[in-house]
Amino acid sequence: MSGGITEIRNVLLFPGVRDGRTLAQVPKAAVFIKDGRFLYAGPADQAPALQADRVIDGRGGLLMPALVNAHAHSAMTLLRGAGADLPLSSWLYDVIFPLEARLTPDMTRAGVGLAMMEYLRCGVTCVNDMYHFPEQTAQAMGRAGMRVMISNACVDFGNGKEQLEDALCFFREYHNSFGGRVRAGVSVHAEYTSTPELVRQLASACEGLDNVVHVHLSETEKEVRDCFQRHGKSPVRYFHDLGLFRMPSIAAHCVAVDEEDLRILAQDGVTVALNPVSNLKLGSGTAPVSEMLSRGIRIALGTDGAASNDNLDLFEEIKLTGILEKGIRHDPTLIPPARVLEAATLSGARAMGYRDLGLILEGWQADCVLVDLDMPNLLPFSDVPAALVYAARGENIKMTMSQGRVLYDRGEYLTIDAKRVMHEAREAAKSLRSPLA
Amino acid sequence: MSGGITEIRNVLLFPGVRDGRTLAQVPKAAVFIKDGRFLYAGPADQAPALQADRVIDGRGGLLMPALVNAHAHSAMTLLRGAGADLPLSSWLYDVIFPLEARLTPDMTRAGVGLAMMEYLRCGVTCVNDMYHFPEQTAQAMGRAGMRVMISNACVDFGNGKEQLEDALCFFREYHNSFGGRVRAGVSVHAEYTSTPELVRQLASACEGLDNVVHVHLSETEKEVRDCFQRHGKSPVRYFHDLGLFRMPSIAAHCVAVDEEDLRILAQDGVTVALNPVSNLKLGSGTAPVSEMLSRGIRIALGTDGAASNDNLDLFEEIKLTGILEKGIRHDPTLIPPARVLEAATLSGARAMGYRDLGLILEGWQADCVLVDLDMPNLLPFSDVPAALVYAARGENIKMTMSQGRVLYDRGEYLTIDAKRVMHEAREAAKSLRSPLA
Repeated sequence: MSGGITEIRNVLLFPGVRDGRTLAQVPKAAVFIKDGRFLYAGPADQAPALQADRVIDGRGGLLMPALVNAHAHSAMTLLRGAGADLPLSSWLYDVIFPLEARLTPDMTRAGVGLAMMEYLRCGVTCVNDMYHFPEQTAQAMGRAGMRVMISNACVDFGNGKEQLEDALCFFREYHNSFGGRVRAGVSVHAEYTSTPELVRQLASACEGLDNVVHVHLSETEKEVRDCFQRHGKSPVRYFHDLGLFRMPSIAAHCVAVDEEDLRILAQDGVTVALNPVSNLKLGSGTAPVSEMLSRGIRIALGTDGAASNDNLDLFEEIKLTGILEKGIRHDPTLIPPARVLEAATLSGARAMGYRDLGLILEGWQADCVLVDLDMPNLLPFSDVPAALVYAARGENIKMTMSQGRVLYDRGEYLTIDAKRVMHEAREAAKSLRSPLA
Repeated sequence: MSGGITEIRNVLLFPGVRDGRTLAQVPKAAVFIKDGRFLYAGPADQAPALQADRVIDGRGGLLMPALVNAHAHSAMTLLRGAGADLPLSSWLYDVIFPLEARLTPDMTRAGVGLAMMEYLRCGVTCVNDMYHFPEQTAQAMGRAGMRVMISNACVDFGNGKEQLEDALCFFREYHNSFGGRVRAGVSVHAEYTSTPELVRQLASACEGLDNVVHVHLSETEKEVRDCFQRHGKSPVRYFHDLGLFRMPSIAAHCVAVDEEDLRILAQDGVTVALNPVSNLKLGSGTAPVSEMLSRGIRIALGTDGAASNDNLDLFEEIKLTGILEKGIRHDPTLIPPARVLEAATLSGARAMGYRDLGLILEGWQADCVLVDLDMPNLLPFSDVPAALVYAARGENIKMTMSQGRVLYDRGEYLTIDAKRVMHEAREAAKSLRSPLA
């Protein structure tokens, strides 16, 4: 399959959104794919005369770029619903961390398997992840044909140096593995789990490396208050001053940010990975998204882990990002749908270092999804970005493709043994959670 | 089928929530149904020796009460996405009202058909609706085996009396039709489309009638400001003073309410139908839900019309109600999941006048849904209310039953010609929208 040409025909082509502008749609399109890239994407009647080895009839469907989940802890599916309705710090310290201390590599792999089923079902092919046993995530997702950028973020409870060495080791072994689908990261978990020494060492150790930093940043007001007490400055300023943001950076959350923080994030070109569902559920608040957009800060979307969400359907983040600020700021003209789609596709990919992922354009990576327009909730179908943001749900995805490979097709997982994964996840969750529950 | 006995076996029974308390779950349950009511619902090994005419094997599923959508404009599916991102008043007056002026009875029926497909797919069997051509809604939903309370809410642009007479006429003809599944209502659209005369006349004309009033109430701050200018009081006080709330009442929205409003709503026993998705999308704001709960105000959940949502999956309202206040008020302990489930089931049913709908109890109406626990987003499955509120989505529903009749089963609609409905809805939307678009 990978050697030949795949044709997707009879689709409405929605090539994606760049800089807030929707690229021209093509009502009767054909798309040709070779070696994991788009060879042609345009009107069917202008398509080159190519002999396809495989034809996908997309009748009744819309073809759009696959989604990017820009902040996740995939294996946390095993902790789905754990510690529900607790405040963030006790949720984290009293429930999540103790459970995670019992995690084994096998459990982690099982949890990632379950997460992949959720990702592919809702059109996600590319995930920015941070979790324990990163080699398990790398291998599971790499083997299943998904893209992942994964780090076991460094913390420093007196063991910062060791953690950093491990992370660099992992980076050398896994970065750009699995045909480039798997990227490794060297990351910091958060201000409150780090020391200035660790951050400085990390920033200097990563100089010259093709590393994208992934960090939890200003998730709650408490985090910011505590940071001011410890360091006399906000977490954003803390990391900036320590040189972290000299690297390309993805900062998850950024809920409790002030004017100066926003100025720094804009100046340093940090991408903010928004997690609106998780932020609401944990009582953290809401990020000032329209402010970020008006300052030119790049936003992407993440589900966070399943323990604070509690599912991994990125369409929930898409819709919530589209409507939340409208409601809170009493202004329905805020956050245009095209901006949300860009955040969920191109912006996430760019933040992860891709220059050729997130649009359906010739020469770009063939990651795309087929949206079933023949479902009641998408009828009538008029304005495409509005329909995808406000009306669509994960179940409208009927096919998910990465690098030209179909990974999910109408309920079937082509690279995942769904039965086995669900069995393993059930067993892993049982042994992980029963003693504490 | 309706004459015999139906057995649902091998399910985890979740009988529902009453007064904030989850009724005891039964892990290996059997449920027997006769004449549209539950005959037995409990442990399989204690079930009476009954010969079932039909057996539904619910293995891997959770049986729970069907959902109630407490505020809807079903036929607005035809206007899905219309006027996206406009402020409420221009959305309503410049886009929605002009489009609605072109509606025909046939179009309305087509729109309702589409809505029913969405309702049943996400587990809703009972809808509180308000829309033009109410007889179309009554007939379409009654025939399809769904429950609906429907009114063409009265407005008064000099024609209040006529409108009220029409509504009373409709009430006499349709109330308790279709075996009691269809209830008619005599309603007021909103303060801003009414006159005090109309409201007074309506309240007096309905005395002695088994009528539940359905009204839009304090949806936006502008509505409240304008009402103060016109009448020197809030919309809540306005309707209270005019005697409307002497009838059982369902008030949609109640976003812009103050202390006194909340006191009145509690005193008058008004049920608030929350529409969090619509309120956010239209920029209206958020209702003070925890305040309402702590004052003992009954809350129910609604999707509102598809033009401001833009789908009818009540699980979105369920999750958003569960997480929104937590985030906005920075307190993850607010709004326990059981309360949300009660709002989406029993409370909505009670508000519509049912005394025996919304729980799976012997003698109660057999409206229930089977949730597929074998789907990745519901694994692992521990705390039932938390899983249903935070992790579940409409697509987890595999069977929807009303009055003991299966209406939806794994993608199939048993009382709706899905192909025809979708075709008619497409055509209706086309002729309705193309001239204005």
